[in-house]
Amino acid sequence: MDFSSDTSAPAHPRILEALLAANSGMAPSYGADQFSARAVSLLRDIFETDLEAYLVSSGTAANALALSLLCPPHGAVICHREAHIERDERGAPEFFTGGAKLELLGGDHAKIAPDELRAALAHRNPSFVHETPSMALSITNLTESGTAYSVDQVRELTGLAKASGLAVHMDGARFGNAICSTGASPADLTWKSGVDVLTFGATKGGALGCEAIILFGDMRAKFAELQARAKRAGHMPAKMRFMSAQMCAFLENGLWLELAGQANFAAVRLADILTRRPDVTLEHPVEGNEVFANLPDELFKSLQNAGLKAYHWLNGSVRFVCNWSTSDEQIEEIRQNYAHFG
Amino acid sequence: MDFSSDTSAPAHPRILEALLAANSGMAPSYGADQFSARAVSLLRDIFETDLEAYLVSSGTAANALALSLLCPPHGAVICHREAHIERDERGAPEFFTGGAKLELLGGDHAKIAPDELRAALAHRNPSFVHETPSMALSITNLTESGTAYSVDQVRELTGLAKASGLAVHMDGARFGNAICSTGASPADLTWKSGVDVLTFGATKGGALGCEAIILFGDMRAKFAELQARAKRAGHMPAKMRFMSAQMCAFLENGLWLELAGQANFAAVRLADILTRRPDVTLEHPVEGNEVFANLPDELFKSLQNAGLKAYHWLNGSVRFVCNWSTSDEQIEEIRQNYAHFG
Amino acid sequence: MDFSSDTSAPAHPRILEALLAANSGMAPSYGADQFSARAVSLLRDIFETDLEAYLVSSGTAANALALSLLCPPHGAVICHREAHIERDERGAPEFFTGGAKLELLGGDHAKIAPDELRAALAHRNPSFVHETPSMALSITNLTESGTAYSVDQVRELTGLAKASGLAVHMDGARFGNAICSTGASPADLTWKSGVDVLTFGATKGGALGCEAIILFGDMRAKFAELQARAKRAGHMPAKMRFMSAQMCAFLENGLWLELAGQANFAAVRLADILTRRPDVTLEHPVEGNEVFANLPDELFKSLQNAGLKAYHWLNGSVRFVCNWSTSDEQIEEIRQNYAHFG
Amino acid sequence: MDFSSDTSAPAHPRILEALLAANSGMAPSYGADQFSARAVSLLRDIFETDLEAYLVSSGTAANALALSLLCPPHGAVICHREAHIERDERGAPEFFTGGAKLELLGGDHAKIAPDELRAALAHRNPSFVHETPSMALSITNLTESGTAYSVDQVRELTGLAKASGLAVHMDGARFGNAICSTGASPADLTWKSGVDVLTFGATKGGALGCEAIILFGDMRAKFAELQARAKRAGHMPAKMRFMSAQMCAFLENGLWLELAGQANFAAVRLADILTRRPDVTLEHPVEGNEVFANLPDELFKSLQNAGLKAYHWLNGSVRFVCNWSTSDEQIEEIRQNYAHFG
Repeated sequence: MDFSSDTSAPAHPRILEALLAANSGMAPSYGADQFSARAVSLLRDIFETDLEAYLVSSGTAANALALSLLCPPHGAVICHREAHIERDERGAPEFFTGGAKLELLGGDHAKIAPDELRAALAHRNPSFVHETPSMALSITNLTESGTAYSVDQVRELTGLAKASGLAVHMDGARFGNAICSTGASPADLTWKSGVDVLTFGATKGGALGCEAIILFGDMRAKFAELQARAKRAGHMPAKMRFMSAQMCAFLENGLWLELAGQANFAAVRLADILTRRPDVTLEHPVEGNEVFANLPDELFKSLQNAGLKAYHWLNGSVRFVCNWSTSDEQIEEIRQNYAHFG
Repeated sequence: MDFSSDTSAPAHPRILEALLAANSGMAPSYGADQFSARAVSLLRDIFETDLEAYLVSSGTAANALALSLLCPPHGAVICHREAHIERDERGAPEFFTGGAKLELLGGDHAKIAPDELRAALAHRNPSFVHETPSMALSITNLTESGTAYSVDQVRELTGLAKASGLAVHMDGARFGNAICSTGASPADLTWKSGVDVLTFGATKGGALGCEAIILFGDMRAKFAELQARAKRAGHMPAKMRFMSAQMCAFLENGLWLELAGQANFAAVRLADILTRRPDVTLEHPVEGNEVFANLPDELFKSLQNAGLKAYHWLNGSVRFVCNWSTSDEQIEEIRQNYAHFG
Repeated sequence: MDFSSDTSAPAHPRILEALLAANSGMAPSYGADQFSARAVSLLRDIFETDLEAYLVSSGTAANALALSLLCPPHGAVICHREAHIERDERGAPEFFTGGAKLELLGGDHAKIAPDELRAALAHRNPSFVHETPSMALSITNLTESGTAYSVDQVRELTGLAKASGLAVHMDGARFGNAICSTGASPADLTWKSGVDVLTFGATKGGALGCEAIILFGDMRAKFAELQARAKRAGHMPAKMRFMSAQMCAFLENGLWLELAGQANFAAVRLADILTRRPDVTLEHPVEGNEVFANLPDELFKSLQNAGLKAYHWLNGSVRFVCNWSTSDEQIEEIRQNYAHFG
Repeated sequence: MDFSSDTSAPAHPRILEALLAANSGMAPSYGADQFSARAVSLLRDIFETDLEAYLVSSGTAANALALSLLCPPHGAVICHREAHIERDERGAPEFFTGGAKLELLGGDHAKIAPDELRAALAHRNPSFVHETPSMALSITNLTESGTAYSVDQVRELTGLAKASGLAVHMDGARFGNAICSTGASPADLTWKSGVDVLTFGATKGGALGCEAIILFGDMRAKFAELQARAKRAGHMPAKMRFMSAQMCAFLENGLWLELAGQANFAAVRLADILTRRPDVTLEHPVEGNEVFANLPDELFKSLQNAGLKAYHWLNGSVRFVCNWSTSDEQIEEIRQNYAHFG
């Protein structure tokens, strides 16, 4: 019953097979190999547009590099106060941007409240040199509370941002889960809705360690700058083919959506079981692969004693993270323990 | 006949097998897994001391993080003017240190000349606030010219550095090749000779992408700072087990030395063949897995037409890089072409 | 009726006289002159301890340099969410620290609420590498709301901070006003109450442009680092004597306290006049040279039409800043206009 | 006989008078005052073009801010290896640019040799992501050896730079001396010859501490960025009028050229005296206010014993710096001592 994190999950066998297949003879280094070209080609198909993409080994690197393209050292990035870039990346955005600030907004279920964004932008005054003006908006989809922004919700926020001249970043560490949950097309949820740069996660979805920074539209012109910034951050691995091969396998034949769908479905079933008890409530809607449940302390301890691995989250609820490999047996084990404790 | 770089080589099968073996069920993320613990344990055995180690996916990251521990923003790092940290890392040391400078010295075959170091240190005046004082020395072993510092040569440089209060970094992207070439023990070539931090490469040696930053002696106290700096640089991959498993397989049963030995031996044979022609000379002694040969242009072009992949290096010589997978056939193909053109 | 800011005030004649007096013949540059030595000596007398001090031309520089000594790039500085370092310095703390974060707390009248600090420190977990731990506390005295921390209030906050291992910075851009208001000794309000580094302002108090960064106790050991950081930030003026002469004149014969007293007294009289109308209230207690008054819009406009210069502040109140040169006539002019509009 | 530096000289009386005159009543802070407007207006007249200008208190700040506009963190600035930005600013360019590199070239008398620049640019390859491409050229006029680039010499270098897409910075800490020496117009020596940004010094010329960063042509569009960068570096003094008043007085009625002329003339006379001895030679042509003379050690010591203040420079010559206040008596004193020792 390990629901601690999707980062603790194994990699999918097809992705490991792709590594083995890529390990044949010499291949040009630093991204000049065939797998790297193919990964970009697959992303172009999936997003139905002529994008540029660059692969890195961690979500933190992907987010921070993306933000460094969108915000100068003397600007600020607006994000939710519970965003990963604020709470869990040890100042990576500040490091990569050269000292930009994060401007924190609230909103239920870790989604930025449009009214808060509206108010923040109303006070924005780039010509007042003493204050740091926001230059970019960063949206997380799935959010840190496991909720999904719909296309309309994304558009409302990006519309406000664009009207004030801000660029838009989407942190898609669990983008596949958001796609499965919303039913939106990758294009609709991103560039067609005003997203300039997407960090597209494969690691939590089933890869060993691989995230894409995707530049849409005009941002494609910044690809050379992105490469330079990645290189000087140590994020241009010599044997890039092993990163790219992961992404190819993840994307081919819809594996990424299949795996995200499995994880999301496991979460729905888990939430259903957890809420059968009247003393258990959900803290957030389940719109992805995560369940945040308010459990009585005693119950949580009993489950932990029975082998559950899961963490308390910000407000005291317990976060259960499902992943592509979460089995029926694990869900069933929760159910049985529940019945037992009940 | 691909001698372009050891970064273009495949990974060794045993390392891929280790990845497969590590891909079993859930595992704690961010380095709390058993493979990460084992990798450190193996390094302690090999270096015969109680060290701390941290794994990253690229040599640039390893070097830059190491230097950020040794040199403040207002200091300088002394290195050879042909060092990788100066020429090939797109300013990563400057980025990670917060703007420290590199102070460039000369010396034959990419080894720092002790007299140049002596002169540089003699002019060092940390109390003169206008100038940037050197705070660290960085030595590359193997050097960028494929030569190896002996234990005595390392000690001469580190002795000078320590006498002036400088910390010492060794860039060991090809450390295994240097060990095979010098016959020194890993301990003797590093901490017993004054090295404070070693970046120990596995990627060029046969891994997919894995380098260790090793802290010796007093530097172990900086391990928490190293983790923080790595995290904020995006170099703390979620599924760390896949990095650590590579390192374990690389170190177990002496695989790293076996592979380095193969590459070095290939280079010796290649150099022997190349120098059979009177119009070909070696630019540098062959003390690792690289051969720098001065070839007549026409000969080089003929070899390229026959399929050779290799690059011109700084001074016009051609760099041939052997690797663990360089086969007898590839060497033989050079020989045959040579005979043919001769 | 110019109450816009104490930064719009002229310099005191004695400070200009000191400049003239210092302009005699050649003098060693970069702080090796006699005026620089004398400024430090005067500060040691005033603070009754063996401190180190460094002069810069702006409060932003003073604060940011101070924080760069107290907080590494991977740490955070706790401050009030209305603090000058957060709201008015365009990211200078982030720039000088190399990307540290500011952690914002609330509290009435721009003073940090001890309970908020207690809660923030309770959640602090430096061993959790993903989050940025606070490493320093920054207190502003006078605050941005014109209120003064008493010695006991400073001690309560610094006590909490020290218990968690944080260093303490005090932004004293209006330190003289706080001294006059609290009646505390400079020593009691700073190092005897746990302040490690003070930025001591003279500019708003009557200088042309001069602030001291004062290192107390163990922090004195960081003086060389401070000089290096100042130099590389362009804050080591060649003709330092002109900066130091200002500070000497400001400190000699208690001029700084005399001028702060005048400004504070003007504020008290102004507040008395403003609050004679029943429709005008004070937003904050008047504990220095600033009055924040809630004025009916119509009244504010009438005063502006009559020549008043003053700005709306955060919450809609009007900020009136008195300074050493605020004359009886200016106060009287407000009174007469008030009578007229009433 | 204090020839140690022009930074040890007093300020000119007219500049101090201007400070006194500016100290009248309240004035808008942060550069919105009349003196700041007038300083820009005067510079436009002198440079015969519609420029933007920003004032800072030190040459290091001026140079580093200028470079931060011209070179991204992942680029390099080409300069002479003896340039002030390389040798005397404690890494300020690296700090302000966010970690850009300096690429050092040689050339006689601290002037960049066109052939070295040509060679450096020939090797430049911005599309090779591993190396840091030069993005800007920085020329110092007067150079650190007291020599002056002529208009033609500037044009040769800027022509090469522009052809490769580099921006051009001129460090004019002693710009007035260069103008007097070359007889060129300010416009001809700068923007008409391809200079994009000039740091125009007044401090060494006779001010208390004041340097202008001047943006020509297209660079004017970066003025808001310059202000933001200056603010976050602590280089936006509250009482800006005192900085601007200095610049106004320095520029009005040609004071700057008058003072530079005096200093240059003193240097010529000094050089004439120094070289009357057959055992004394000039290390560099005297083309400004500095004389670099190779003196026998014994002679130098005798002069020092007689009261001379001057420093040994890089290659062993003695640097004599004249300034606007260098008197006939001081020159005469050298002559008499010379006669005496002779």
